Amino acid sequence: MQDPVVSIIMGSRSDWPTMRLAADILDELGVAYETQVVSAHRTPQRLCEFVEQAPGRGIRVIIAGAGGAAHLPGMAAAMTHIPVVAVPVSSRQLKGLDSLLSIVQMPKGVAVATQAIGEAGAANAGVMAAQILALSDAELSKRFIEWRTRQTDSVPVEVE
Amino acid sequence: MQDPVVSIIMGSRSDWPTMRLAADILDELGVAYETQVVSAHRTPQRLCEFVEQAPGRGIRVIIAGAGGAAHLPGMAAAMTHIPVVAVPVSSRQLKGLDSLLSIVQMPKGVAVATQAIGEAGAANAGVMAAQILALSDAELSKRFIEWRTRQTDSVPVEVE
Amino acid sequence: MQDPVVSIIMGSRSDWPTMRLAADILDELGVAYETQVVSAHRTPQRLCEFVEQAPGRGIRVIIAGAGGAAHLPGMAAAMTHIPVVAVPVSSRQLKGLDSLLSIVQMPKGVAVATQAIGEAGAANAGVMAAQILALSDAELSKRFIEWRTRQTDSVPVEVE
Amino acid sequence: MQDPVVSIIMGSRSDWPTMRLAADILDELGVAYETQVVSAHRTPQRLCEFVEQAPGRGIRVIIAGAGGAAHLPGMAAAMTHIPVVAVPVSSRQLKGLDSLLSIVQMPKGVAVATQAIGEAGAANAGVMAAQILALSDAELSKRFIEWRTRQTDSVPVEVE
Amino acid sequence: MQDPVVSIIMGSRSDWPTMRLAADILDELGVAYETQVVSAHRTPQRLCEFVEQAPGRGIRVIIAGAGGAAHLPGMAAAMTHIPVVAVPVSSRQLKGLDSLLSIVQMPKGVAVATQAIGEAGAANAGVMAAQILALSDAELSKRFIEWRTRQTDSVPVEVE
Amino acid sequence: MQDPVVSIIMGSRSDWPTMRLAADILDELGVAYETQVVSAHRTPQRLCEFVEQAPGRGIRVIIAGAGGAAHLPGMAAAMTHIPVVAVPVSSRQLKGLDSLLSIVQMPKGVAVATQAIGEAGAANAGVMAAQILALSDAELSKRFIEWRTRQTDSVPVEVE
Amino acid sequence: MQDPVVSIIMGSRSDWPTMRLAADILDELGVAYETQVVSAHRTPQRLCEFVEQAPGRGIRVIIAGAGGAAHLPGMAAAMTHIPVVAVPVSSRQLKGLDSLLSIVQMPKGVAVATQAIGEAGAANAGVMAAQILALSDAELSKRFIEWRTRQTDSVPVEVE
Amino acid sequence: MQDPVVSIIMGSRSDWPTMRLAADILDELGVAYETQVVSAHRTPQRLCEFVEQAPGRGIRVIIAGAGGAAHLPGMAAAMTHIPVVAVPVSSRQLKGLDSLLSIVQMPKGVAVATQAIGEAGAANAGVMAAQILALSDAELSKRFIEWRTRQTDSVPVEVE
Repeated sequence: MQDPVVSIIMGSRSDWPTMRLAADILDELGVAYETQVVSAHRTPQRLCEFVEQAPGRGIRVIIAGAGGAAHLPGMAAAMTHIPVVAVPVSSRQLKGLDSLLSIVQMPKGVAVATQAIGEAGAANAGVMAAQILALSDAELSKRFIEWRTRQTDSVPVEVE
Repeated sequence: MQDPVVSIIMGSRSDWPTMRLAADILDELGVAYETQVVSAHRTPQRLCEFVEQAPGRGIRVIIAGAGGAAHLPGMAAAMTHIPVVAVPVSSRQLKGLDSLLSIVQMPKGVAVATQAIGEAGAANAGVMAAQILALSDAELSKRFIEWRTRQTDSVPVEVE
Repeated sequence: MQDPVVSIIMGSRSDWPTMRLAADILDELGVAYETQVVSAHRTPQRLCEFVEQAPGRGIRVIIAGAGGAAHLPGMAAAMTHIPVVAVPVSSRQLKGLDSLLSIVQMPKGVAVATQAIGEAGAANAGVMAAQILALSDAELSKRFIEWRTRQTDSVPVEVE
Repeated sequence: MQDPVVSIIMGSRSDWPTMRLAADILDELGVAYETQVVSAHRTPQRLCEFVEQAPGRGIRVIIAGAGGAAHLPGMAAAMTHIPVVAVPVSSRQLKGLDSLLSIVQMPKGVAVATQAIGEAGAANAGVMAAQILALSDAELSKRFIEWRTRQTDSVPVEVE
Repeated sequence: MQDPVVSIIMGSRSDWPTMRLAADILDELGVAYETQVVSAHRTPQRLCEFVEQAPGRGIRVIIAGAGGAAHLPGMAAAMTHIPVVAVPVSSRQLKGLDSLLSIVQMPKGVAVATQAIGEAGAANAGVMAAQILALSDAELSKRFIEWRTRQTDSVPVEVE
Repeated sequence: MQDPVVSIIMGSRSDWPTMRLAADILDELGVAYETQVVSAHRTPQRLCEFVEQAPGRGIRVIIAGAGGAAHLPGMAAAMTHIPVVAVPVSSRQLKGLDSLLSIVQMPKGVAVATQAIGEAGAANAGVMAAQILALSDAELSKRFIEWRTRQTDSVPVEVE
Repeated sequence: MQDPVVSIIMGSRSDWPTMRLAADILDELGVAYETQVVSAHRTPQRLCEFVEQAPGRGIRVIIAGAGGAAHLPGMAAAMTHIPVVAVPVSSRQLKGLDSLLSIVQMPKGVAVATQAIGEAGAANAGVMAAQILALSDAELSKRFIEWRTRQTDSVPVEVE
Repeated sequence: MQDPVVSIIMGSRSDWPTMRLAADILDELGVAYETQVVSAHRTPQRLCEFVEQAPGRGIRVIIAGAGGAAHLPGMAAAMTHIPVVAVPVSSRQLKGLDSLLSIVQMPKGVAVATQAIGEAGAANAGVMAAQILALSDAELSKRFIEWRTRQTDSVPVEVE
């Protein structure tokens, strides 16, 4: 079994039904990952330690999902030099518009790679992490191109 | 000269033209304060240290202003038990709607006292800090009530 | 049994399922409170009397929740010098965006401490009231810090 | 000179450049009016007295303009049985969207007659007040219909 | 049985579950009304005829409800000199925000009296129509004031 | 000189600086057009007559621009069987979001061909009208394809 | 059986329940059409080939529906000279507001004929396609006018 | 001089004042790049060729900026397996909210790494590209960490 190279973190267990789509894509593409609940607001100390130790443990990309006043991806990005891919989890009242703006409108100097709101965004966080890792992993690059081709081939022509 | 009991922090020097209205109100009401630039994203370490040491230095209320993906007030609130009053600073494109949602939509368990977007909100952060402190400061309470009365009396009747 | 120091008011009985989360937090933290329906629009006279008499009855913080064109928190704040913590209750069509803007965009001079839309905001209104009261109540301050620590400790590491 | 039958009130002197368009229309239509600054937040007592005494002074329609967390029209409507026509004054950051939602989303039982944001809305508040009064004033009804006809005739056919 | 003085029109039969709340209020207040489906888009000719003939049939106030690109209230107001009270009916995707903006943002010169989105707005259209008619109907004015008092008295004090 | 086949109508002279971009494109493509101010709200009678007579005068496509509660395109579409291409003109406060929603959210059965807000949309109204007419005008079709090719060729490669 | 003159394309099979309303209207009006799934993102090559070959196969109007970051209509319009009628399909979180803005805000030079969000818009895409084709098909024009008359006649007068 | 490893593309020359901030950051970090105007709508053929040939020319990350109905980043991502970092350029009326939603709401399977609206987002596109490349370039990783440290150190403490 491989050591994880991607870390999927989320602000709450309630984000997992969304974030598991990132894990599913990484499984399909053969990328090893770990998962953990880390809350920027309720466990700020855990966040600091987790993010700062991640590169030393071999983590190369962090996928962070959060909803509402979603501070997890931006704070993670502030604390490390490895790329952070962000997923705005849908929120109860504003349907993730708050999550999206809280995540994407980062100030100059600290970047996150924001994906779509909700499940499509979580899946695409897995896609983006794989694309980033594939730049220095020829086997993964080959698997990704094949996966993309299968995806294209699987789009039906008939509407029903 | 009094030791400061309120700390006005902001994510960037460019927030000061807005945040100075908080300082102006505290000056009017005779509440001692300090001011400092602390960026959640660019100086996360400074933020941790500053917030954790604030109560020990006699700070009783933190006023935090930030714009865009505004994580400063929420992260400050996560790291201390004293009240954090928050000011969504107006942003260039979305005019502070991003700042407001990033600040106000906090998850259950960590609260900030959000004010209006921009200058009115900054002034009211000063008002709210004074109201909070006045609960245990009879002199300030008296000054606040007088200030409120002067404010009411100063509203003109004539429209021009 | 203690005399109440927090008053939880709301514009309609239909706000109670939301606002009870404020009561729950105050129960957890050992803060005595009262609850009442007071409508800015349907009972403006009751509002005046209630708010003006609150400090004399020992109330130190008002928590006010309302939805739609939510005028209750701002009008309460206009009529007293004690802090008003506000909860935008979710609305049927606009999901509380109207409630939020009606509450938070107060003009310079009259402040409310706005929380998130809906249940998280109601809970945090209890949190904020406790933090304010804890500034002059060492026992409450101790209970609050312990509650916060329990909250942090209760965040699971595993995602499911 | 006639006694005023319309009262144009506004939350701040800064609303007058907008609200004067209501006055201009009433001048054109020969409807007598008064103007006054009344702030729901800064002068709640003045608001109560003003609105409750208005019908006794012969006022038949109130036009109320306010911006941001605009509580003036709704609170006026809560305190009287005569019609309140409301103007959402444009706000600095959110361009009157906050004013509009704060005014129009009134709960069942207390109604205001909301107009468009800003100058067009202020002018139309004058139009609506005149239409309401014309129902029981045949002379005004005649003037209104003539004014409408002149307005229609004055729309050019050529685009420049 | 009285001749109707209020005409409640709506763009589609599907608006009736909302608009019937206007009828209910008029029933409570003893105001006679008629109801009709008139679509600005699908029956523009019927709209013209209906609105132009309304005053001659004794109609004094029109209540118009429509959703989406809601043109009915504004077009009705363009074709008559009597007051038009407007109800933005909630829409499937945008929850009435489109209805509201389509109705309220009228250009200078043609006014409608816009109410809240959905059922509360429909009820308040009945309230506003009654308030307008009460200006020249002392009996209705008395009934309205009594209805308002009963409404105030019926607001409970207890939250549950 | 050719008889016009496109009619460019707009709610106000103030829309012409936007709508002239439609005229410019039609000039470039050699499509004859006429222009006229027709207000749905201020000249409803003129609108009826103009639109109903348009096909008889040889008009094959109507381009209609309006802002705010923009009812002109939808009402024109309700009164004729020829295609109506719509331009949401930018509005002062809401920057054309109100115009866009008022125009595009038409109910089932009456369609308009909505373009972008403002100048780009006006230009594209000319493009769309030409594309529609080109289906039965081989010369115009040839000119359109050449114009498209020139447009593609004119996009620079260098960024400055 | 006629050769298709309209092509209904959509980004995903999940768009068909919406897009079938376009097909239903074309059936009612006797316009022959084809349907196909073509994804701008997952099958860009298929999109290129499909759109470029459409005119050669006799297609005169393309109806394109897509949701979220909806690029299909604009990309189709970029690749052909025949009119593209666009349907913003409702999206899970933002209810089609993202779809609408992604589709309608096209830059100067490439136009699409945008319809309402969701089912009404899909139906109207069929209406608009028929109106466009009717300009050069007298039989269709006659059928369209009759259909419109039946639609007008079918609007009930009674509200229930 | 190094061969470029990042390609900065944009839909129009008017995007360059925004996109040059990406170039500035890459200059600071010593990452070689190229720039080019490529319009998804006006030059779809150029887009196809450019994107498909990019990896063969040594390009490892594409930065794509566009405004309004911004299809460039998503279409580029659909045509290649290397990461695409996206910048929503501010738009004239909707201030980039349309650009943001058009870019970020990608469907499952094709991902872009969206940054903030406007200049901050363009700068951060450079930051993100460098972070991605640094995963397999130890020298760049070292430069990035030093740049981050200088950035942190340069945040002033004093507010003015």
